[in-house]
Amino acid sequence: MDEATPVEVEATKEPSPDKSRAWGGIDLGGTKIEAVIIDASGTVLGQTRHPTPGDGSPGDVVKAMYGALREAARAAGLTPQQLAGVGVGAPGSVDANGGTLAHVSNVGKGWSDPYPVAGDLGDLVEGRVVIGNDVQVAVAAEYRLGAGRPYRSVLGVWWGTGVGGGLVLDGTPWRGRGAAGEIGHVVVKPGGARCGCGRRGCMEAYAGRASMERRARKAERRGEKTLLFELMRKKGRPRLTSSVWAKALEHEDALATRLIDRAVMMLGAGLASAINLLDVEAVILGGGLGTRLGPGFADRIHEAMAPHIFVPERQPPVLLAELGELSGAIGAALLAEPPMK
Amino acid sequence: MDEATPVEVEATKEPSPDKSRAWGGIDLGGTKIEAVIIDASGTVLGQTRHPTPGDGSPGDVVKAMYGALREAARAAGLTPQQLAGVGVGAPGSVDANGGTLAHVSNVGKGWSDPYPVAGDLGDLVEGRVVIGNDVQVAVAAEYRLGAGRPYRSVLGVWWGTGVGGGLVLDGTPWRGRGAAGEIGHVVVKPGGARCGCGRRGCMEAYAGRASMERRARKAERRGEKTLLFELMRKKGRPRLTSSVWAKALEHEDALATRLIDRAVMMLGAGLASAINLLDVEAVILGGGLGTRLGPGFADRIHEAMAPHIFVPERQPPVLLAELGELSGAIGAALLAEPPMK
Repeated sequence: MDEATPVEVEATKEPSPDKSRAWGGIDLGGTKIEAVIIDASGTVLGQTRHPTPGDGSPGDVVKAMYGALREAARAAGLTPQQLAGVGVGAPGSVDANGGTLAHVSNVGKGWSDPYPVAGDLGDLVEGRVVIGNDVQVAVAAEYRLGAGRPYRSVLGVWWGTGVGGGLVLDGTPWRGRGAAGEIGHVVVKPGGARCGCGRRGCMEAYAGRASMERRARKAERRGEKTLLFELMRKKGRPRLTSSVWAKALEHEDALATRLIDRAVMMLGAGLASAINLLDVEAVILGGGLGTRLGPGFADRIHEAMAPHIFVPERQPPVLLAELGELSGAIGAALLAEPPMK
Repeated sequence: MDEATPVEVEATKEPSPDKSRAWGGIDLGGTKIEAVIIDASGTVLGQTRHPTPGDGSPGDVVKAMYGALREAARAAGLTPQQLAGVGVGAPGSVDANGGTLAHVSNVGKGWSDPYPVAGDLGDLVEGRVVIGNDVQVAVAAEYRLGAGRPYRSVLGVWWGTGVGGGLVLDGTPWRGRGAAGEIGHVVVKPGGARCGCGRRGCMEAYAGRASMERRARKAERRGEKTLLFELMRKKGRPRLTSSVWAKALEHEDALATRLIDRAVMMLGAGLASAINLLDVEAVILGGGLGTRLGPGFADRIHEAMAPHIFVPERQPPVLLAELGELSGAIGAALLAEPPMK
């Protein structure tokens, strides 16, 4: 961000006088590492985006995260060592207490054993690093600074390659024993389609972009006509990205329309189940497909939920995430920050 | 309870010197009204059970509730006016703040407009009456005094005529905006079987005793052989009660076995969805069918959940409710009491 305003380094009441009132957040993704610096009001002071090292070791990934953070800090007129705290949002199995990350499949060359991401990165930034689930922190950011601001309890659904989720209940992120929020693995059809997680009938098996792509490739092999893969090649992509799906829908491609219609129906059933169980005030729709397909789809998902809502007059709104691609990195920074609300 | 021990009326530090350290709880059901008196440790000091007035007005129902409470209080050596507080667990739409009860179909002659149950009963007991959802208070009782004691977060599933639910999250009952816990209306099959609530594919449409009875009657009319209705007549019942189902299963009745198997499968899917979303520590199984079919069925439901649990090594136990038929009345009394845990 060119117009980033450097913060003044306040020394008052801070335990360490050279720490600023600014926090760093890193969103670790399969293709990119997003880093932001925010102040106490949540304003973004600096940001940067780096590619994730393609086949890097966990150590390489941590170094790349540090590089992105340093650049974002520089844009804010700071060094990583001056930050009051740093947070990381990551995919895979996060152990927030241990500061480790395990079972990561799409980052670098992937790893399964717990790796001390928080410790390693903490050594580089010379300070405290907190780690959390990528979708949960993005939902927390939307709750505090985005579409969830008017509410105390929200369910976030991150519709992309998979379908992730996050809960804020009465102002506090709800993590259960650490694995809560898996809205994508709510069962919408026992014995149904095979999911990427290996189980059957999960919502993600119908609505996840990866599942829809598998199904589209199968249909094409069976000889079904579709623009999906032509559009993909035109965009020079190896995968059906969210913008490929959006384009195919614009062209009223029959296969894309059918698969997206089914995804919306299953999102409706799964989200309605969650509302009947939790009765939260709002659903926030994010993720690559969620944000790319836009407000029209928030409305369609709302309609698909309606037939299943137990107290119809109290059906919560489905709102589009407001912080866009930065929600993950901002949420990660909020992880490291003392609570404000 | 004949061996009920009268409590001493302590006047120390109490705002009203003639109030005891005992609380009353009333569980309002379609066929019976259960009342208990408990002390601050949750010990039952007196209890009684009255039939619900068959075609009574809301006012008649309140009078019957007061009668049951008075009798339970007498068994504890008290009068209703000496109780420190009274709670009611009720079916239908409970407005806890307004103290009203609406949309009650099976109690007395039923009513739809909000009726001031708490106010009317409060006039009779000359004190504060709190009202809550019957299943939610039963789950809270199991959390505090029953199977949920070792945990901070539990999901209760009350398997009976319908399938009700209640949540305790980190020590606090979670009610959402008032309607949370409807685990019976989690969608297990979009477009599936018609539910008593009018919607399609709810878990209750497969697992609720009323839904199973409708399906059994249809099968019998189609000529399918079953012992279910013969057993029902032998027991002199107009409905397939939990004990009729249990007996038919003992006889390996094919129709009963098939319907219960399907119920267990759908309970497994719906409960696993709830666990994937909330990651609570335990599931507590109560309700007429839940308690009648016993521990074997808690295990069967646990097995039916297993294929859908996202973090299989952390699948929570399914525990049978411990307070039996009194959980509702005890939970109602706890509603009126200051929190202990």
